[in-house]
Amino acid sequence: MLLAAMCLALLGCLQAQELKGHVSIILLGATGDLAKKYLWQGLFQLYLDEAGKGHSFSFHGAALTAPQQGQKLMDKALESLSCPKDLVPSRCDELKGQFLQLSQYRQLKTVEDYQTLNKDIETQVQQDGLWEAGRIFYFSVPPFAYADIARNINSSCRPHPGAWLRVVFEKPFGHDHLSAQQLASELGSFFQEEEMYRVDHYLGKQAVAQILPFRDQNRKALDGLWNRHHVERVEIILKETIDAEGRASFYEEYGVIRDTLQNHLTEILTLVAMELPLNISSSAAVLQHKLQAFQALRGLQKSSAILGQYQAYSGQVRRELQKPDGFQSLTPTFAGVLVHIDNLRWEGVPFILMSGKALDERVGYVRIVFKNRAYCTQSERHWVPEQSRCLPQQIIFYIGHGELGHPAILVSRNLFKPSLPTQSWEEVQDQPGLHLFGRPLSDYYAYRPVREQDAYSTLLSHIFHCRKESFITTENLLASWVFWTPLLDSLAFEVPRPYPGGAENGQLLDFEFSGGQLTFSQQQLEVLIPDLVSVPKPSDFQVLGAQYRQSPLITAWPEELISKLASDIEAAAVQAVRLFGKFHLALSGGSSPIALFQQLATGHYSFPWAHTHLWLVDERCVPLSDPDSNFQGLQAHLLQHVRVPYYNIHPMPVHLHQRLCAEEDQGAQTYASEISALVANSSFDLVLLGMGTDGHTASLFPQSPTGLDGDQLVVLTESPFRPHQRMSLSLPLINRAKKVAVLVMGRTKREITTLVSRVGHEPKKWPISGVVPLSGQLIWYMDYEAFLG
Amino acid sequence: MLLAAMCLALLGCLQAQELKGHVSIILLGATGDLAKKYLWQGLFQLYLDEAGKGHSFSFHGAALTAPQQGQKLMDKALESLSCPKDLVPSRCDELKGQFLQLSQYRQLKTVEDYQTLNKDIETQVQQDGLWEAGRIFYFSVPPFAYADIARNINSSCRPHPGAWLRVVFEKPFGHDHLSAQQLASELGSFFQEEEMYRVDHYLGKQAVAQILPFRDQNRKALDGLWNRHHVERVEIILKETIDAEGRASFYEEYGVIRDTLQNHLTEILTLVAMELPLNISSSAAVLQHKLQAFQALRGLQKSSAILGQYQAYSGQVRRELQKPDGFQSLTPTFAGVLVHIDNLRWEGVPFILMSGKALDERVGYVRIVFKNRAYCTQSERHWVPEQSRCLPQQIIFYIGHGELGHPAILVSRNLFKPSLPTQSWEEVQDQPGLHLFGRPLSDYYAYRPVREQDAYSTLLSHIFHCRKESFITTENLLASWVFWTPLLDSLAFEVPRPYPGGAENGQLLDFEFSGGQLTFSQQQLEVLIPDLVSVPKPSDFQVLGAQYRQSPLITAWPEELISKLASDIEAAAVQAVRLFGKFHLALSGGSSPIALFQQLATGHYSFPWAHTHLWLVDERCVPLSDPDSNFQGLQAHLLQHVRVPYYNIHPMPVHLHQRLCAEEDQGAQTYASEISALVANSSFDLVLLGMGTDGHTASLFPQSPTGLDGDQLVVLTESPFRPHQRMSLSLPLINRAKKVAVLVMGRTKREITTLVSRVGHEPKKWPISGVVPLSGQLIWYMDYEAFLG
Repeated sequence: MLLAAMCLALLGCLQAQELKGHVSIILLGATGDLAKKYLWQGLFQLYLDEAGKGHSFSFHGAALTAPQQGQKLMDKALESLSCPKDLVPSRCDELKGQFLQLSQYRQLKTVEDYQTLNKDIETQVQQDGLWEAGRIFYFSVPPFAYADIARNINSSCRPHPGAWLRVVFEKPFGHDHLSAQQLASELGSFFQEEEMYRVDHYLGKQAVAQILPFRDQNRKALDGLWNRHHVERVEIILKETIDAEGRASFYEEYGVIRDTLQNHLTEILTLVAMELPLNISSSAAVLQHKLQAFQALRGLQKSSAILGQYQAYSGQVRRELQKPDGFQSLTPTFAGVLVHIDNLRWEGVPFILMSGKALDERVGYVRIVFKNRAYCTQSERHWVPEQSRCLPQQIIFYIGHGELGHPAILVSRNLFKPSLPTQSWEEVQDQPGLHLFGRPLSDYYAYRPVREQDAYSTLLSHIFHCRKESFITTENLLASWVFWTPLLDSLAFEVPRPYPGGAENGQLLDFEFSGGQLTFSQQQLEVLIPDLVSVPKPSDFQVLGAQYRQSPLITAWPEELISKLASDIEAAAVQAVRLFGKFHLALSGGSSPIALFQQLATGHYSFPWAHTHLWLVDERCVPLSDPDSNFQGLQAHLLQHVRVPYYNIHPMPVHLHQRLCAEEDQGAQTYASEISALVANSSFDLVLLGMGTDGHTASLFPQSPTGLDGDQLVVLTESPFRPHQRMSLSLPLINRAKKVAVLVMGRTKREITTLVSRVGHEPKKWPISGVVPLSGQLIWYMDYEAFLG
Repeated sequence: MLLAAMCLALLGCLQAQELKGHVSIILLGATGDLAKKYLWQGLFQLYLDEAGKGHSFSFHGAALTAPQQGQKLMDKALESLSCPKDLVPSRCDELKGQFLQLSQYRQLKTVEDYQTLNKDIETQVQQDGLWEAGRIFYFSVPPFAYADIARNINSSCRPHPGAWLRVVFEKPFGHDHLSAQQLASELGSFFQEEEMYRVDHYLGKQAVAQILPFRDQNRKALDGLWNRHHVERVEIILKETIDAEGRASFYEEYGVIRDTLQNHLTEILTLVAMELPLNISSSAAVLQHKLQAFQALRGLQKSSAILGQYQAYSGQVRRELQKPDGFQSLTPTFAGVLVHIDNLRWEGVPFILMSGKALDERVGYVRIVFKNRAYCTQSERHWVPEQSRCLPQQIIFYIGHGELGHPAILVSRNLFKPSLPTQSWEEVQDQPGLHLFGRPLSDYYAYRPVREQDAYSTLLSHIFHCRKESFITTENLLASWVFWTPLLDSLAFEVPRPYPGGAENGQLLDFEFSGGQLTFSQQQLEVLIPDLVSVPKPSDFQVLGAQYRQSPLITAWPEELISKLASDIEAAAVQAVRLFGKFHLALSGGSSPIALFQQLATGHYSFPWAHTHLWLVDERCVPLSDPDSNFQGLQAHLLQHVRVPYYNIHPMPVHLHQRLCAEEDQGAQTYASEISALVANSSFDLVLLGMGTDGHTASLFPQSPTGLDGDQLVVLTESPFRPHQRMSLSLPLINRAKKVAVLVMGRTKREITTLVSRVGHEPKKWPISGVVPLSGQLIWYMDYEAFLG
């Protein structure tokens, strides 16, 4: 629905654009830093580009300052407007004169000020015999001022119906998902979605703005390359040499992830990763595909990121924010984040986002590194850079600065000769001795913009031309915060690694990724919290040979425990397959087994999955596709990563004839006969159980009328917790197993662990106490928190 | 069973070894090239190593030559025996004198000769008051002579029971699977498996022999690295500068794959890829794990290999084999082969085997290249080779020659410091300026053997010490031929790419791999069969907008047709998911859809699999796990590669209550109600059909009493072909679909295609003519062979 509305709005936008008329541009915060540095120059460029094409313009610099002083400050900002090199100076002087004449300062403080502005525009338009096309309000003011201004514009300064309104916002757009949502809904109460233009100025940088056109114009060459089969990794990098000095009050609140990763680097990521629409000039299609890219992002874990902080930072914060002497900030000034995209195009390809202050050089780039899939028969001495497919193959969108010193697009010559618009991009002259990304510049087809253009000029033109795809829609913004907020929350109390700053950082901030995690390559050199040193290592503790309820007990730290259990299961599987040709494994649901599933999925290469049958110990009476289903956890964390044949997978039939666990559907009996038919003697090779804080196991709860004894192999039961209805293997069936492993983890289990260690055989009260294999082996796997409390 | 027998035999072997006694070594072919060059020296080395350790020895050089002349030839071969550097010359002279005295020439031609040898050995042993420990017969003779010699040894020259017999064979061990099997079974009629030692002398090369010990001694470092998550590729390379001149008669029959890939490179491959046994000194465990590695090899396709032939080769063959002037050999002298291993450790890791004659350098190596999984924050200028994880990480077993000039093991310094036995391996001195595999030698921990030893010396010692894991067992040999023979057959008439030889080969033989295929990087420069040039390209032919039976017809070459059909299915899926949230696709079995499945699995990144339901059009009444099951094809070629949720997969219930398609089990009704419940209006979004040469479609055959009309949605039917019993969607159900695609491919369909184009609506005679969607769309997809014949 939103999309459809947007489409119509965009269509309207294009039609409106055709009708020439008067355009008023109101720059709010006209005397601020951003205005002085970029926005007035951008507006002048817009005037240079558009004057004489049918529209007429007026430019209103606005601020809270009183008129006279404001005009003075604004004049000062306008003094330094410069002309583009390709314009004849006399012509430029003339146009600059016109521009200055069209630009007036105006104090905008009260609702009356806005009413006056509105009237003035209307009057002027009428006087000049013009027709009003639209108004652009550029919010170059702090976010706290947004609401008042927005209210005033909406109530008192909208153009007449038929003319368009565009309001332009600058980041930050909130601090996390909630605040972004609040801000968005507040603005949404004043403006339509299609009226709002949220600026991420990186989208106006020439190399970034060229990503989609490059992908489009080189479709043929990229079609087979732009995917997980060919891309080894994508690096999206923004290195700064400056630090946060002088901006500590802003920076201390935001930090590097909110400052650059959540916005700039994420936007670039979506441009690289999104499916390319057939028509990239359709804003609606681009925005829709971008949104889909967000939906495919795999959620970030704490372990997806590493953080650093330059050593001088806390001192700067103390000085600038008058913090006490001992104050240590936890705000990261450096972050590396590993992003994975769970779709068929990008699955398994690492996207590395990195940004930091006080690093050894200033540079930004996106680097797509292709897999080396060639073997060169000749000795390396004979390789020819233009031809040899054994040399690195990469495409780089060089945003700027760095050793090259200007924006550029680089394509390894052994890859393909790219097509770029020749009127705006030209080949870079070779600079002998210059190496970029491991190769001499001459190894690349290298292009630079014919005319370097500031990002704000580009974006102002896009606002004027209604190119919404260069801006952040509300959906886009919230999707980005949905992605980043959990990571930010989980890292809130993380201590960043200190680094000296500049070239002295050495290898200290290098990092690597394995198994979905990012870690610093070097061990932490300084221990910030000395107490941690004395924490005993896992191997100090392990109590092998111990017993619990007369059965072997294995205790360890969680990671080690899971690892041991996984190895034991593999050993049982290998043995069963060797002896009987198959391995029947019954698994419990819940959270503890998930770590086990992940361990089995990634670390056990010789596991005989092709000969393993997977059964469920218990199931909730929900459809298999329900997120609450035990089967769903098994599917997501294990089945998707290993190759178990379809017919070796045995979910519990809780959903028959479109009903859940109806007695009449005989699901329990069906499962029981499936077991009898396939599992020799109904004796599973291994059953994995858990233990609840009430002493339940499988879905056999205290006082259960079924499943604790009797002949039934599989039973329907009632849980005290939602969803109440369950299906479960019965104790008699569990006790026929050759091996039973009970996994108990976490501090919350401490009490029941102690209790159960003392009770006898009382399955009615504590079903777990009824787990006594007839002739099989029972082993307890407990982590220290469950066992020692 | 075989394994158990082998274990016992090996145990016997070790026990026998403890009992010291007299050992007779009979070298058959004692005056041949191999004997002169390596074997006598190897035997001398064995004597040097073992004399004085309790055993006594006699060495019998044997051949067909008459005694006197044979002795003369043998003496000449023995003259050049050299002493190892680390032995005092006087001591060596003394030992050499002893060795010569123990070595006698003997003509072995007739059965009487063998009887005499047997008697002589027995007499000598008795005379010297010794006890006979065993006999080694080394077959350094052409394979055609094996049978006679083997028969004679078996009948007349076995030692007394209690002493061991070992017979040693040199390759070639057959020419393909059949001939290898025949040879093996012939030898098997004379010798026990444990008596036979098949030599692959590469297993005696020091760097190769060190692969398993290296993996074993560096388990800790390699444990997490030696798998698909970390290994980018493995290169197993054997480059020669010499050509086949003078050996054309041998080479013409074998070619490079049989000469080096089937044996040397494959053996090395298994050493790298096999699961490492806990105890690598257990021959039985090593051999068993090696065999398992063979079983995991993915079958080779014609497209797995590229072939070359140096330009002078055919001339050499013409000269040496007196072939007519125009003769052109098809025997390859260069081959690159891409091997994949389908297990969890190696899935997706390319193993590249390459070997050739007349290349630019002589070198052999195994190179394990690790994935670069690091990001280095500093500019490259600051990287430190020992620390930077961004520089290449590799392990190389350098077999010999090349720029290094000796065997070596290299491990990148940024990887780990390997552990090697210091008494036999020492660090290599740095050679400034020497670059290996893209990095200076100083970037590696590099080790070389303290004492270089010839492969044959090593292997003779292993034969003596009963180390069977260094030899090729019958099972191992046949497994290798099972792997290579289909490729050799499919390449038999392939024209190899000609290459000039030496450094002039340039980039001509470079190759690359994508999607499981190997291709030369450069297009073929010379077209050998000019006729091929005039073959029309697919796009010349395509007849879009055509009709067949009043419905749209798409015709194309097979690849293009499949590609178009896959795109059409994806478009239908995307549309259905957009409109209804899911896509119901019913697929047929058979061979044509397999190409489609593969195309969908690898080329369609935006396919909404998570929202797709897969149904079967028909099924054979066999268990789902049966290779004949349609479901099995779907699973192998599609499901394993995409992520369709388990509960969206709907195999036909042909196997219920342990019976196949029993009426009473109501499988067809069950499937029909599943369809009714999940598919709105029982109207599939897309049904994919085929057409049989008898006009059948789905499993609806001519004259079928069920399924052609009536109310039933799903029916049991009878096929004229085995397996006769089938389950099938009915015509009425098929005709409710929104889209029906009929895929018809191959020359055999020509006749029925013509026929069906003419008939009306006669489903009883030609069931396919009954496919007339009620309100949906029917499209025919036919390749040119089916359509044009």
